[in-house]
Amino acid sequence: MASTKLYCFAQSGNAYKAALMLALTKSDWEPVFVDFFNGETRGDAYRATVNEMGEVPVLVEADEKLSQTGVILPYLAEQTGKFWPADAKARREVMRWIMFDNHKFTSYLATYRFLHAFAKSDPPVVAFLLARVKAAIAIVEKHLGTQPFIAGNEPTIADISMCGYLFYPKEEFGFDIAAENPNIAAWLDRIRALPGWVHPYELMPGHPLK
Amino acid sequence: MASTKLYCFAQSGNAYKAALMLALTKSDWEPVFVDFFNGETRGDAYRATVNEMGEVPVLVEADEKLSQTGVILPYLAEQTGKFWPADAKARREVMRWIMFDNHKFTSYLATYRFLHAFAKSDPPVVAFLLARVKAAIAIVEKHLGTQPFIAGNEPTIADISMCGYLFYPKEEFGFDIAAENPNIAAWLDRIRALPGWVHPYELMPGHPLK
Repeated sequence: MASTKLYCFAQSGNAYKAALMLALTKSDWEPVFVDFFNGETRGDAYRATVNEMGEVPVLVEADEKLSQTGVILPYLAEQTGKFWPADAKARREVMRWIMFDNHKFTSYLATYRFLHAFAKSDPPVVAFLLARVKAAIAIVEKHLGTQPFIAGNEPTIADISMCGYLFYPKEEFGFDIAAENPNIAAWLDRIRALPGWVHPYELMPGHPLK
Repeated sequence: MASTKLYCFAQSGNAYKAALMLALTKSDWEPVFVDFFNGETRGDAYRATVNEMGEVPVLVEADEKLSQTGVILPYLAEQTGKFWPADAKARREVMRWIMFDNHKFTSYLATYRFLHAFAKSDPPVVAFLLARVKAAIAIVEKHLGTQPFIAGNEPTIADISMCGYLFYPKEEFGFDIAAENPNIAAWLDRIRALPGWVHPYELMPGHPLK
């Protein structure tokens, strides 16, 4: 039994951020399937015993129970010494993009994808979110024209955070992010080439076609 | 001339988080007004010279230019030694709530308030965001039933982050968050009682009635 457990499910790009970090650092871990689509994260039991915030992922080790990938990723980076610059100023730049990811990039993209692909509701809401998604994507596309990875020349947890939703099939978004954004496409190829990279639908349990 | 400058404007609760931290720590700082409502943050000049992410706040010191309150607040906490527990595990708990704030609490509340109070558009979008706002508020209201501050018995930068939008007039939200949530109301009273606390419309430039 692995000493590290990750509460997750295949369709969650937020869970994928933590799972991918564990995979890329060759950590000893095992997934705990969370039945999001049947309401597990919205239930009292999950909120009382796993995460009061009602979200995945949650990382559990002997004396740690952490949620929020913006906390889990720096924690794993500290533990492993990987995907994390040594310098405090460089770490602030990494964290600045992780904050942007949580605040503007993943936040709109994940909610948009959920409504578009899984909930199929509210056309004006989907259109509103799509406009926000495209504005955030444009900032990242421009930024990646200047350097190969989000925070410079080497991959960091900022890349692992920001790519969280970008390997899912384009049908789930209704448009092709990589085809429309060549700098993002080239960056995703660089991440895909990292030793130990695995697609989210292979890495986490619960995909309906598995 | 103060050595620390903060790009901000009165109506931005995100800018207020940084401004309030500067006020509570009695730092030497001065505001730089950003004309958000006339499009300054969306313009090429702002994005090229101040912040490629197109947002406030931005904190500028001699050798630092930081955006994202989730980076600015820990930076100021490190500099001043205030509102920041000594222990790494306790800091992760602080950061977990700052991430939740950026990801779910402020993110929906700020966007909802902007559409409700300033843009007056898209009723289905406003209703969608309001449902998300109320779900996030319910998590915080429940959490604050167990302890006086977000991360325990003492105020931290998690409180300063999460209160960012909650001192604005209830008319800007169309409902009374404090009246509906007694634990949040009592917590806001505790923050208001901290030495050096100032209301956002007093602390930052640009309010139309000033």
